[in-house]
Amino acid sequence: MNIVLIGAGNVATQLGTALQEKGFPIVQVYSHTLASAKSLGSQLQVDYTNQIKAIRTDADIYFFAVKDSVLPEILKSLPALSGLLVHTAGSIPMDVFAGYSGRYGVLYPLQTFSKSRKISLDTVPLFIEANHPADENLLEEIALSLSNRVIRLTSEKRKHLHLAAVFACNFTNHLYATAAQILEEQDLPWDVLLPLIEETAAKVKDLHPKEAQTGPAVRYDKNVIDKHLAMLKNDPGQQEIYRMLSQSIRN
Amino acid sequence: MNIVLIGAGNVATQLGTALQEKGFPIVQVYSHTLASAKSLGSQLQVDYTNQIKAIRTDADIYFFAVKDSVLPEILKSLPALSGLLVHTAGSIPMDVFAGYSGRYGVLYPLQTFSKSRKISLDTVPLFIEANHPADENLLEEIALSLSNRVIRLTSEKRKHLHLAAVFACNFTNHLYATAAQILEEQDLPWDVLLPLIEETAAKVKDLHPKEAQTGPAVRYDKNVIDKHLAMLKNDPGQQEIYRMLSQSIRN
Repeated sequence: MNIVLIGAGNVATQLGTALQEKGFPIVQVYSHTLASAKSLGSQLQVDYTNQIKAIRTDADIYFFAVKDSVLPEILKSLPALSGLLVHTAGSIPMDVFAGYSGRYGVLYPLQTFSKSRKISLDTVPLFIEANHPADENLLEEIALSLSNRVIRLTSEKRKHLHLAAVFACNFTNHLYATAAQILEEQDLPWDVLLPLIEETAAKVKDLHPKEAQTGPAVRYDKNVIDKHLAMLKNDPGQQEIYRMLSQSIRN
Repeated sequence: MNIVLIGAGNVATQLGTALQEKGFPIVQVYSHTLASAKSLGSQLQVDYTNQIKAIRTDADIYFFAVKDSVLPEILKSLPALSGLLVHTAGSIPMDVFAGYSGRYGVLYPLQTFSKSRKISLDTVPLFIEANHPADENLLEEIALSLSNRVIRLTSEKRKHLHLAAVFACNFTNHLYATAAQILEEQDLPWDVLLPLIEETAAKVKDLHPKEAQTGPAVRYDKNVIDKHLAMLKNDPGQQEIYRMLSQSIRN
């Protein structure tokens, strides 16, 4: 079973590495950027190209791990392929592939990937979908070799999952950044927050986040809330976020 | 050096236990609620009372770990004390004690405490302040025996720290709860988010949260943002939070 990786960013790197470690043969890496293609190709010791027309047409599976906005453009330029086309995006429906191949699917890892951090896929939930039952079984088998948590999920449900991930990851990180900014404005080192951030995340392993809620908003301590709002008066955006989140916690 | 604990909740329990483990003699526990006083008193094997007039007047230090709103009321009812009065609250200025004693201070642990989880104070940043240099030195010495990170901080700066903690902990937890709700509405188990939550928190140990930002808002992927806003149309509160946080990330 030969595999081609389309993309050489964080997801492609982690997925490609994990697949190769589990014995799946990666035969080629494509990236629009030659340096990226070369970097991942060299790491995996396989062929690489930045020419879309040079993508091998004889592979069994093509994993697409590219920016959401780039995927449709790549599909338009692809040579005709008979293999299974699989993307890794949360917000893109499976049928983005319709018209480009008769066999397609999705393998969506629910995790945030960055260059500087190696992620073990073992515990990352993988959500899979395919347009043929046999291919869904194949994707499940591959996914189960990478992770202990594999779930079949429709495109419709996956988009809600992706929305939830935006709250739990992207927005959460922005609150960290806001907290860091508040401290830096006071010439305090932002990293004093790290034990609190870590424990806040760890707590929900034991308690549902609804049960874990603490702070002035859940007590509706109007005295503290009003003081905090006053402290944010020079940043109306932060002030409004504080107000809305406090109101939402209270509800 | 005899210590009295005023309060028997999560902070009093963790602080009292840690102090005792380090050899500081706790001599009494007070709580408004007899059952709580008894529970912590028994755990520490020391006297306990729920009678404010029965609080010992001969102790050297009194640590107050009670709800913010309760502290002023307790102070009004206290017998005259000559020891050092210390509270553990982020948002209350040190001079809440003025008029009740000539010696007072603050020891604020920047952490979220819950009944069900034992926290090691070792790595919890402790912020201290006192109205006399000798007492500030004493508090520093005690704090350094509990934690490897002790910082002297004025009441004015501490209130900003507390505000930052609301963002990094309380609001963050609310985003977890929102994400969980989105999944539960789709009959998906919310705990598939745990590896993502954990990695989002772990990532900022290596990267400043500004550098760690990912997602549709930082890319300003209007297509995804608009779809997400449409999915939240039945919950105007969540929709507005999504809109404001995305706008704030973009800025």
